[in-house]
Amino acid sequence: MEPLRVGMLGLGTVGGGVARLLSGEGERIARRAGRPIQLTTIVVRDPKRPRAIAPPPGTRLTDDPRAVLDNPELDVVVEVAGGIEPARGWMMAALRNGKDVVTANKALLAEHGADLMAEAGRTGRALAFEASVGGGVPVIHALTVALTANRVDALAAILNGTCNSILTEMTESGRSYRDALALAQAQGFAEADPTLDVDGTDTAHKLAILAWLAFDHRIGPASIPRRGIDTLDELDLRFAAELGYAVKLLAWAERREGTVAPRVAPTLVKRGTPLAEIRGPFNAIRIVGDAVGEVVLTGQGAGASPTASAVVGDLIDVATGRARLTTRFLASPPSAVPSRTASAQVVDAAIQDPRRRHYLRFGILDQPGVLGRIALILGQHGISIASVIQHDPGEKLPEDSGEVVVPLVVMTHLARESALERALEQIDRLDCVRAPSLQLPVLD
Amino acid sequence: MEPLRVGMLGLGTVGGGVARLLSGEGERIARRAGRPIQLTTIVVRDPKRPRAIAPPPGTRLTDDPRAVLDNPELDVVVEVAGGIEPARGWMMAALRNGKDVVTANKALLAEHGADLMAEAGRTGRALAFEASVGGGVPVIHALTVALTANRVDALAAILNGTCNSILTEMTESGRSYRDALALAQAQGFAEADPTLDVDGTDTAHKLAILAWLAFDHRIGPASIPRRGIDTLDELDLRFAAELGYAVKLLAWAERREGTVAPRVAPTLVKRGTPLAEIRGPFNAIRIVGDAVGEVVLTGQGAGASPTASAVVGDLIDVATGRARLTTRFLASPPSAVPSRTASAQVVDAAIQDPRRRHYLRFGILDQPGVLGRIALILGQHGISIASVIQHDPGEKLPEDSGEVVVPLVVMTHLARESALERALEQIDRLDCVRAPSLQLPVLD
Ligand SMILES: NC(=O)c1ccc[n+]([C@@H]2O[C@H](COP(=O)([O-])OP(=O)(O)OC[C@H]3O[C@@H](n4cnc5c(N)ncnc54)[C@H](OP(=O)(O)O)[C@@H]3O)[C@@H](O)[C@H]2O)c1
Ligand SMILES: NC(=O)c1ccc[n+]([C@@H]2O[C@H](COP(=O)([O-])OP(=O)(O)OC[C@H]3O[C@@H](n4cnc5c(N)ncnc54)[C@H](OP(=O)(O)O)[C@@H]3O)[C@@H](O)[C@H]2O)c1
Repeated sequence: MEPLRVGMLGLGTVGGGVARLLSGEGERIARRAGRPIQLTTIVVRDPKRPRAIAPPPGTRLTDDPRAVLDNPELDVVVEVAGGIEPARGWMMAALRNGKDVVTANKALLAEHGADLMAEAGRTGRALAFEASVGGGVPVIHALTVALTANRVDALAAILNGTCNSILTEMTESGRSYRDALALAQAQGFAEADPTLDVDGTDTAHKLAILAWLAFDHRIGPASIPRRGIDTLDELDLRFAAELGYAVKLLAWAERREGTVAPRVAPTLVKRGTPLAEIRGPFNAIRIVGDAVGEVVLTGQGAGASPTASAVVGDLIDVATGRARLTTRFLASPPSAVPSRTASAQVVDAAIQDPRRRHYLRFGILDQPGVLGRIALILGQHGISIASVIQHDPGEKLPEDSGEVVVPLVVMTHLARESALERALEQIDRLDCVRAPSLQLPVLD
Repeated sequence: MEPLRVGMLGLGTVGGGVARLLSGEGERIARRAGRPIQLTTIVVRDPKRPRAIAPPPGTRLTDDPRAVLDNPELDVVVEVAGGIEPARGWMMAALRNGKDVVTANKALLAEHGADLMAEAGRTGRALAFEASVGGGVPVIHALTVALTANRVDALAAILNGTCNSILTEMTESGRSYRDALALAQAQGFAEADPTLDVDGTDTAHKLAILAWLAFDHRIGPASIPRRGIDTLDELDLRFAAELGYAVKLLAWAERREGTVAPRVAPTLVKRGTPLAEIRGPFNAIRIVGDAVGEVVLTGQGAGASPTASAVVGDLIDVATGRARLTTRFLASPPSAVPSRTASAQVVDAAIQDPRRRHYLRFGILDQPGVLGRIALILGQHGISIASVIQHDPGEKLPEDSGEVVVPLVVMTHLARESALERALEQIDRLDCVRAPSLQLPVLD
């Protein structure tokens, strides 16, 4: 049978993994694809520089993207170069030239997924992107194929292995954020410039993609409220542990009365529940469907080989013809269906304002009656207290400067964030409290 | 667009769930399938008896299977009646009559999956069976679609919610097997006759299906060595907990040097690892692929609504055309491919004989020197001891009858089962040991 001919844009971490898997396991992959998958042309910035991963024998290395995009002999383009441009233009050109496209580019999909999908719909080609979220974890297939009978009611996910490694280290060894980050960099779990990982941007990109598939809404990643782990204090991980929780950087979104409010934030997750137990560079996605109930998928969220597993899986899906059928459904415009029962209006978390538990930490002056005054204000806003931690003043806050400021930790019962914000504003004005108070959401 | 017309064999727990989902969420499902999915005819044993789940309006209820199988207006047959015959004959007839088939019938697939798949291959129709393993957990899609780039190297899974509920209860409340079973029956997690669940048969059926997909080998469920949970003593769950392990009924199979040795057994699983933390009626499947590494999928393994999620997901896959493409790959005969790199020879566990840790419990007479004699024999067979538990003799074995017999628990270092068996034979002949000794494998 005719081989599937593939051109690839990029031969870095992911591209190298793909090249290695396709050349090392060609027979196995051919059997599953029904025909050989042949990588013929690879585009890089600098074909001359020495490379850790040599291009497989028989492939051409070039710096000319047209050698892939305009090459009539190629059936599929794999985009693993990254970034917004020129990747966006390349993928549009590939689709227009009748090629199926496989990509791992979450930043691009989060920003321009809708346009790319529409173009794939127009040209009848596949746009496959399993590798863009969760590395090797088959969450895109789960949402677009296996769980399609469901209306998704909630998503909660750990989507950044760098952050999860750092948080695991901070929790288990008591290290500070700075020290844990340095260790993760030394171990290869964090990049030299980890900004987009630790500030929650990467997680927001992935959540934008998942929320689109789960809630049928294209949502710009910039409009997803986010907090990263870069301002977390190890103190709060310790208090959380005392209360029976782990702190995780969670992407979450829940459907409530026709609205969905995606957000990214460090969150307290009850120990013993699946997401709380995910350690190190692993990812996990919890999907709640109206029919299936809770499903959790976990695995390695990044790295050459797990990500290549997803890219090559998509190539097999392209080779069998399945990928085009899936794209056809994803690309169908909302107007093509009478009623979008599954879609939901995207709103700000403050508007959806569900009732949940909250973790609060106040920096208070070590004097009598402070807890009473705080509890009083919380009570006036209808917020009741589930537990309190106040150790003896040996434990001082880092921001201490002369006065004796000690941490007071409060876990609330279910409370609305809007009420909480009003209460915190008032509490932060007390003369016995050193603002700003810290607040983290809780996933029970 | 033309609707997909469906006939269904069975309207019990699963059939009822399917009927409810299709009629209650018809619009949503139509949007994802690209066309309406219309349930027109349902076959039951007794159409006259009063039913908890009424057939949806517009469907015909009959006791004549030919009304579905020979009905030229139907595109798909959903088989949710269960059992081997007549279900096997029905499915063969449906495929021969040009209909796609969706089934939840693990017993049938485990026994006759190969014949059914071959027939689907001959007729070019789909045979979809996501619901047969793991209920709503998309493990069949993971193995047949999303993870196809991988050679699967190991599977370990909790596949029976009844057993897992009973084990969770025994562990957390210290109840005996009998009491925990009675409670599970009262709570609806166990059937009135739970034999096929608790003796490991149901788990072996599901493992036969997974092993076929993962290791490319059709393996009769009867040839899978199995032990159930029905002979477990709560004592061992307590000792396991002391050693840092949970006891789970595991289905497992590992690829070693071209062989695979599937088996079902109560197994000690290290606390803190994903499978150990699965509580109650949930299922979990851990897949290790050569590219992706470890992936774990969890969710509800049974019940009307989760299982219907899988059946209706398959119907959507049939409607889009994807299911036939997947079946085509699964049905391709081994001879169609030059080299079956991914297949492995199925052997007995004793032949594969990997090195692992083992949990051993001896009933010993309460006299000095017994541990020494046991350790000596283990040592002679090259088995070294990692930890020992021997409490003071207040704790007597249930089989105690006059003599003071006390439990001695040993956790070994890595050891071959063949060596262990020889050692145990010798130990069981000691006059200070009351045979038979208990041995459980360990998953670290
Ligand atoms: N790394 C992971 O674990 C992972 C996981 C999931 C998804 N992803 C996504 O996968 C994509 C690739 O990531 P990566 O880690 O493999 O990146 P990388 O290691 O930086 O590799 C990028 C590759 O693309 C080539 N390239 C970049 N810009 C180019 C241009 N303008 N013209 C020609 N070639 C260009 C580079 O060429 P040179 O070799 O000549 O520099 C390099 O080979 C990104 O979208 C990333 O978000 C990565
Ligand atoms: N229950 C679960 O959670 C679950 C999960 C996964 C897979 N499964 C599998 O799904 C299948 C169905 O299970 P279930 O629990 O839904 O079974 P069930 O509640 O016993 O229902 C069986 C249905 O099939 C009908 N039926 C059985 N034999 C028939 C015959 N010879 N002729 C006509 N109709 C017949 C019955 O008719 P009447 O109503 O007239 O008796 C009944 O409606 C089984 O293969 C099971 O292993 C079940």
